Amino acid sequence: MTAPSHPSVNRLTAPLVEDLIRRADALRLAVSRLSNGTVVVDAGQRVPGGLEAGRLIGEICMGGLGRVHLHATVASPNWSWHLDVHSSNPVLSCLASQYAGWSLAHGEGKGAFQAMGSGPGRALGSREPLFEELGYRDSADVATLVLEVDAAPPVELADRIAEMCRVDPANLTLILTPTSSLAGSVQVVSRVLEVALHKVHTLHFPLDQVIDGAASAPVCPPGRDFLTAMGRTNDAILFAGQVHLFVRCEDDAAAELASKLPASASKDYGRPFAEVFKEVGYDFYRIDPLLFSPARVTVTNLDSGRTFFGGRIDLALLDKSFGIA
Amino acid sequence: MTAPSHPSVNRLTAPLVEDLIRRADALRLAVSRLSNGTVVVDAGQRVPGGLEAGRLIGEICMGGLGRVHLHATVASPNWSWHLDVHSSNPVLSCLASQYAGWSLAHGEGKGAFQAMGSGPGRALGSREPLFEELGYRDSADVATLVLEVDAAPPVELADRIAEMCRVDPANLTLILTPTSSLAGSVQVVSRVLEVALHKVHTLHFPLDQVIDGAASAPVCPPGRDFLTAMGRTNDAILFAGQVHLFVRCEDDAAAELASKLPASASKDYGRPFAEVFKEVGYDFYRIDPLLFSPARVTVTNLDSGRTFFGGRIDLALLDKSFGIA
Amino acid sequence: MTAPSHPSVNRLTAPLVEDLIRRADALRLAVSRLSNGTVVVDAGQRVPGGLEAGRLIGEICMGGLGRVHLHATVASPNWSWHLDVHSSNPVLSCLASQYAGWSLAHGEGKGAFQAMGSGPGRALGSREPLFEELGYRDSADVATLVLEVDAAPPVELADRIAEMCRVDPANLTLILTPTSSLAGSVQVVSRVLEVALHKVHTLHFPLDQVIDGAASAPVCPPGRDFLTAMGRTNDAILFAGQVHLFVRCEDDAAAELASKLPASASKDYGRPFAEVFKEVGYDFYRIDPLLFSPARVTVTNLDSGRTFFGGRIDLALLDKSFGIA
Repeated sequence: MTAPSHPSVNRLTAPLVEDLIRRADALRLAVSRLSNGTVVVDAGQRVPGGLEAGRLIGEICMGGLGRVHLHATVASPNWSWHLDVHSSNPVLSCLASQYAGWSLAHGEGKGAFQAMGSGPGRALGSREPLFEELGYRDSADVATLVLEVDAAPPVELADRIAEMCRVDPANLTLILTPTSSLAGSVQVVSRVLEVALHKVHTLHFPLDQVIDGAASAPVCPPGRDFLTAMGRTNDAILFAGQVHLFVRCEDDAAAELASKLPASASKDYGRPFAEVFKEVGYDFYRIDPLLFSPARVTVTNLDSGRTFFGGRIDLALLDKSFGIA
Repeated sequence: MTAPSHPSVNRLTAPLVEDLIRRADALRLAVSRLSNGTVVVDAGQRVPGGLEAGRLIGEICMGGLGRVHLHATVASPNWSWHLDVHSSNPVLSCLASQYAGWSLAHGEGKGAFQAMGSGPGRALGSREPLFEELGYRDSADVATLVLEVDAAPPVELADRIAEMCRVDPANLTLILTPTSSLAGSVQVVSRVLEVALHKVHTLHFPLDQVIDGAASAPVCPPGRDFLTAMGRTNDAILFAGQVHLFVRCEDDAAAELASKLPASASKDYGRPFAEVFKEVGYDFYRIDPLLFSPARVTVTNLDSGRTFFGGRIDLALLDKSFGIA
Repeated sequence: MTAPSHPSVNRLTAPLVEDLIRRADALRLAVSRLSNGTVVVDAGQRVPGGLEAGRLIGEICMGGLGRVHLHATVASPNWSWHLDVHSSNPVLSCLASQYAGWSLAHGEGKGAFQAMGSGPGRALGSREPLFEELGYRDSADVATLVLEVDAAPPVELADRIAEMCRVDPANLTLILTPTSSLAGSVQVVSRVLEVALHKVHTLHFPLDQVIDGAASAPVCPPGRDFLTAMGRTNDAILFAGQVHLFVRCEDDAAAELASKLPASASKDYGRPFAEVFKEVGYDFYRIDPLLFSPARVTVTNLDSGRTFFGGRIDLALLDKSFGIA
């Protein structure tokens, strides 16, 4: 199969960002500019934002290639609203854009600003080694990043991001979604497909053998504090997320992927994420990276037409994480 | 939290109305003008209209802030098609626009025209006290109202509506959806979120503490006559509607809301709506206003992260209302 | 009821086709031109294409009147992703556009090209007698056809199609979706509503009594070879498809329709389609035409308000067809 040439995730995203900003009042967002001209969209710090804002930001994170739908289902009876996610190019959309992989920081000590950058701007300015493996780099004069933060980004950081992306600071948009906000919850749970693909990569399954995919997970009730909120967004995916991947490989490899990909294949699986995180002293790097994945996995091998299953939804753990059990 | 400035529901709705009119043939609608220039869209009186027309009119009713999706589900096994409703600003969208609260009448006796006006035009011209509480008034030079009627509106009424809305009569659009039409059924069931918020208001729960929400209910089979048709649109919500609200308050207030909000908390709950309506001599004002609400309620308190539940879906009553039991 | 004038399915489809072509890179499609200028969109022969490309092509097949949604459901627990289909004018959209009824061929013997043409171009150029019954013919200077083929169409055939459609060959677009591709699977399963309406017609139920409808079926895992792939796309509809039709007729006729319409009413029902097809020596015309229909049928009679049911979902047969049982 010959691959078509790659699209520009930042250019594809630009009209979605313009639409978000034009409808800021309707979406209950606040838009401002830093002194260098960088556009800052507050989606939940000092404004309500909401589910729909989060859904649109989820699509922005996916680089204009993904669709996020909010819909009612009986898949998890206590939590009726799920996010369905699919993309015209899942690997590019999720790993080159949506994955929160760009480590950003400014200042030191108590006032330091720290965030993981997500969204299409990564494909312009981030130095993550992942891009070598993807064989993708974007070229565009506009850049967008989503930051899951509770504070405003310092202008010095915006300057540096713009410089690394090689865009005018005024052409950079930073969208802020606090973890405990509704928009924050929705945009993080919208990562259910990305989380699956990231673990596919961690398992060393070749990404060019992943042809397509779709995933779904429940909207979590936002937690009051950062720890609970962050735990719930993870658990929505770990305990009740499901993904269907379409791959091209040997059947043994597809079967192995279905067996190893679910969250339950990790040694750290079995408790709400907030508990796990607390136990390792709030140090992400001490958590088994294989934990981050949907609960239930379906893998269809297009080369053979065979389908393999792995994992399971655990509604009891979901209820525990979401605070009703 | 600072609230962003309010959007104009009539201006946000204008492009949706233009699109509806441009695609009138495709949607099987008839568009005409009264002698004063007012645009009248017939969505089911002398034309078929249909489910998709009703879905779009549902979004028009929500003032350009809401989304209505039609999708298949196994939530109510005999009735596969449900409407999912959410909005970027539920209180404004549902109560300042979608609620059928503007009482309109012209003439007397047998030939009198009577209708409850719904949609963004209310926020321009209606004198309902609700707007004081919402602290919202729209300002726009176009207006749209949806009327659930079987007859054409008299031009004198259109003149008066335009005058009260302070728009040129030629800039007023009236969309007509008979209760027993497909578009009528769909646009009324699309009120499942609005019905919940209206009861929230009736229960004196502060509307500014309602941050977000999403709701779902089955498409009802239209009834042959007005009474059956109207009964079924109500019962779709009362017996099988569900809503998830996100609020900010004390936990006691959230728990109380979850307990009192469901339709089953009303003394008039338990029979198809058409029976209840008949029993009170077809006098709406003798029905317990607390009856009008979804069957099942989920309330998440963003201030505490806790979630409370109330009510239940009753499929047997649904089947009875929908004429198969 | 007076019917509004008919829309042009080719003109309504043109912007969707333009959008597909503009986003070809993002959708992983390849666009080229034959020597006569005819546009050819490869959606799975030498490029990956994918689920989203198939969804959009499904909407193109429906003549710009239909909507195809991909969403997760627990309706068929092993196969989470379903396609929901509805249209603003189901009879026109499905039978005058989406139905693969235009028999196209060029050359003879081993190198012969054969395909059934689907999509709005049929309403311009096909001589199927069905159009007389529909009382519909399109008039437009652009034409689009979808061909479920593994090979490139010869320019002579494109010339002939353009001539029959009375459009400039450069204004003809041919979209190619191999049966075993993801886009091919999705666009065929998107025919779940069309398949129902075609059987309605085969049963001699008057099409002008069908007012509306909506249908749903699971996305099938594409089969490796043509026979398996084609069998699965059929079985997705035959074993797990469901349709809700809204009709105007006598109750007896509606009840009879609900009873006769399901696939299970056919004498050839009960095995995966690939087996049936093999048994008749791969001769479509030896298969009972009444087999092609959704598994479960709901018929609501708008004249009486009564609803009738027929058929059933068979998940065991679905699993067998999809290769896991």
